[in-house]
Amino acid sequence: MPATQLPFSTAEYDRRLAKVRAAMAAKEIDVLFIEDPSNMAWLTGYDGWSFYVHQGVIVFHDEDPIWWGRAQDANGAVRTVWMADERVASYTDNYIQSPKLHPMETLAALMRERGYGGKRIGLELENYYFSAKAYLVLKDELPDASLIDATALVNWQRTVKSDEEIVFMRRAARISEKIVDGIMERVEPGLKKNDLVAEIYGDAIRGVDDDWGEYPAIVPLLPSGSDAAAPHLTWDGRRFDEGSATFFEIAGCYRRYHVPFCRTVFLGTPPQYLLEAEKALAEGLEEGLEAARAGNRAGQVADALYKSLEKAGIKREGRCGYPIGISYPPDWGERTISFRTEDDTILEPGMTFHFMPGLWMSDWGLEITESILIRDTGAAECLCNRPRKLFVKN
Amino acid sequence: MPATQLPFSTAEYDRRLAKVRAAMAAKEIDVLFIEDPSNMAWLTGYDGWSFYVHQGVIVFHDEDPIWWGRAQDANGAVRTVWMADERVASYTDNYIQSPKLHPMETLAALMRERGYGGKRIGLELENYYFSAKAYLVLKDELPDASLIDATALVNWQRTVKSDEEIVFMRRAARISEKIVDGIMERVEPGLKKNDLVAEIYGDAIRGVDDDWGEYPAIVPLLPSGSDAAAPHLTWDGRRFDEGSATFFEIAGCYRRYHVPFCRTVFLGTPPQYLLEAEKALAEGLEEGLEAARAGNRAGQVADALYKSLEKAGIKREGRCGYPIGISYPPDWGERTISFRTEDDTILEPGMTFHFMPGLWMSDWGLEITESILIRDTGAAECLCNRPRKLFVKN
Repeated sequence: MPATQLPFSTAEYDRRLAKVRAAMAAKEIDVLFIEDPSNMAWLTGYDGWSFYVHQGVIVFHDEDPIWWGRAQDANGAVRTVWMADERVASYTDNYIQSPKLHPMETLAALMRERGYGGKRIGLELENYYFSAKAYLVLKDELPDASLIDATALVNWQRTVKSDEEIVFMRRAARISEKIVDGIMERVEPGLKKNDLVAEIYGDAIRGVDDDWGEYPAIVPLLPSGSDAAAPHLTWDGRRFDEGSATFFEIAGCYRRYHVPFCRTVFLGTPPQYLLEAEKALAEGLEEGLEAARAGNRAGQVADALYKSLEKAGIKREGRCGYPIGISYPPDWGERTISFRTEDDTILEPGMTFHFMPGLWMSDWGLEITESILIRDTGAAECLCNRPRKLFVKN
Repeated sequence: MPATQLPFSTAEYDRRLAKVRAAMAAKEIDVLFIEDPSNMAWLTGYDGWSFYVHQGVIVFHDEDPIWWGRAQDANGAVRTVWMADERVASYTDNYIQSPKLHPMETLAALMRERGYGGKRIGLELENYYFSAKAYLVLKDELPDASLIDATALVNWQRTVKSDEEIVFMRRAARISEKIVDGIMERVEPGLKKNDLVAEIYGDAIRGVDDDWGEYPAIVPLLPSGSDAAAPHLTWDGRRFDEGSATFFEIAGCYRRYHVPFCRTVFLGTPPQYLLEAEKALAEGLEEGLEAARAGNRAGQVADALYKSLEKAGIKREGRCGYPIGISYPPDWGERTISFRTEDDTILEPGMTFHFMPGLWMSDWGLEITESILIRDTGAAECLCNRPRKLFVKN
């Protein structure tokens, strides 16, 4: 039983487990193995930086889940999961990064012992941390089982947030606002990028009042000038320049719940093309927010944005948003719905997204984004409350 | 061509590529696909937080490598890799987290176009980010190819560090020392854990003089009291208590090179069992460092430590060290050699390890560790220079 207080109520964990079991039944899955740390945490409360070794949660139809992982991490599991201590199973250290042994041999043995050696076993085939080798070992060790692709089965149960989850996301949003305020206050020509990142981490982790901050699933990104065309480069020790734009992509994180938020800053007098892009983007965001309402398709948000941008002569396509919530590195997205034309998912109240119409041109970039909550009626609510504009500092 | 200066010389990249090609030849691999971000960076210079989507480097015997990944990250690739711009290939955004399309379809097409559809293709089957699904798609799309397990093939080429790399690791070590000094200065009863973590990140990322710090591949870990039995729990907002021990597991990171370093702090007067464990651990470390010399087996380091601990009545087994160097989340280890009895790898000058004999008991933990460099002769050199003891603060 957990030594620390569980983040959510028993009723909440019960509800989650019931949803997952129903989804398993719909795919005729007898037992489900999930390795995604976000899914593990959402379902059981497990929280630790141990996903660099094989671990997971086994979900049954008729008994409580089992946390399975490395022996030294079982200590962390009994401290964080809602299940009884005897629902924590582990393997010894000689299986770690061994050329001869693989942890999945022990998972397969557990499956056989419990009578699932010839059953339909669901696996997250497309997931960080569930390697090709893990699959091949299970296949070899469980020749009579049917291995079913259960990619994102749990993730899809996470799309609509409960009231308890929304409380956490609002706390994360306060942290996001604090980070952005700190950036605007401190950024200036001559400041070293890594020194600003140090302050960003300070704000992110100190949090707001008693709501402490955690590590975000993606590090702060803040490319400047032509480097802003490359959205995922990380910082270095160079100094901010007068006369150039920098976009800041950050997220506040509270109890693993993320609220990403991006704003762009220009140091000096911005060029006309950037002001025009800002105007187009602000209008596009407004149109997208109007389309982000319960009953609409996810693709309509993208279409509304792209149509608006096109009026300003900006051709944008692809993905401009993704669901957010509980997450671990390397990504704070939920990897289910996408804001893109071809996504026909119907939006529901309680869904949360990062509406992320970043413009990455060949030699400049502009990011002004909003994390949003789909409401019962009307346009989406923005979780953060800061001006939706290009920030200019002279 | 890179917009920023490459971290290493051309000769260094040439040497690395030659080593990898020789290892490919030894396994009769015609073409190698690597998805491990550490291997990608080590071989090409690529550096970005984009490993949450499929990407990789394709290594040929007779032409320069190709960076392959998402279109928006190709902008980052041309800015960071040593290869010419035309050696950067990409796929469009509709392949991202799509239920219908998979990026590996485009990699398979590239392999076929270049004449490797029926060849021996090496893959990192046991690796973060190379999913089971990625393997299954490649297998399906390349029915005439032989897919060869090339797990850790590149990692093994990284074990012996060049002089250029050792310069980076010494810089990372200065950052590690700064972090530990900051912890010792600031930790006290009543301080909130997250507030101390904010300072740790500050020191880590500000770096030392002009050597800016980067995000470590593992977040700072600092469990206290009985929670220290669980080595991978992350921080929360609770306050440090008088009368309890906390271990700090941190790493300075310079240009993605890590030097992990752990020390334990007791606030108040430590109990006798902890002082005895400290003494035993310090002696065991000394014995292990003596055994960590060129020509010895990796297992001898573990044996020396365990034999020494046993004299003090402490039974320790399993792994007590791993190679370190360039890395990305979720792990700062190189995943090749292990300090454990059964590892017969011969130590060579230039190898670097985190010698990590953490003691995680049922209700307390003690970590005093050293990152080490195997020398030409004599015992290993410790990269950090701080007292090897339990820190006590009254």
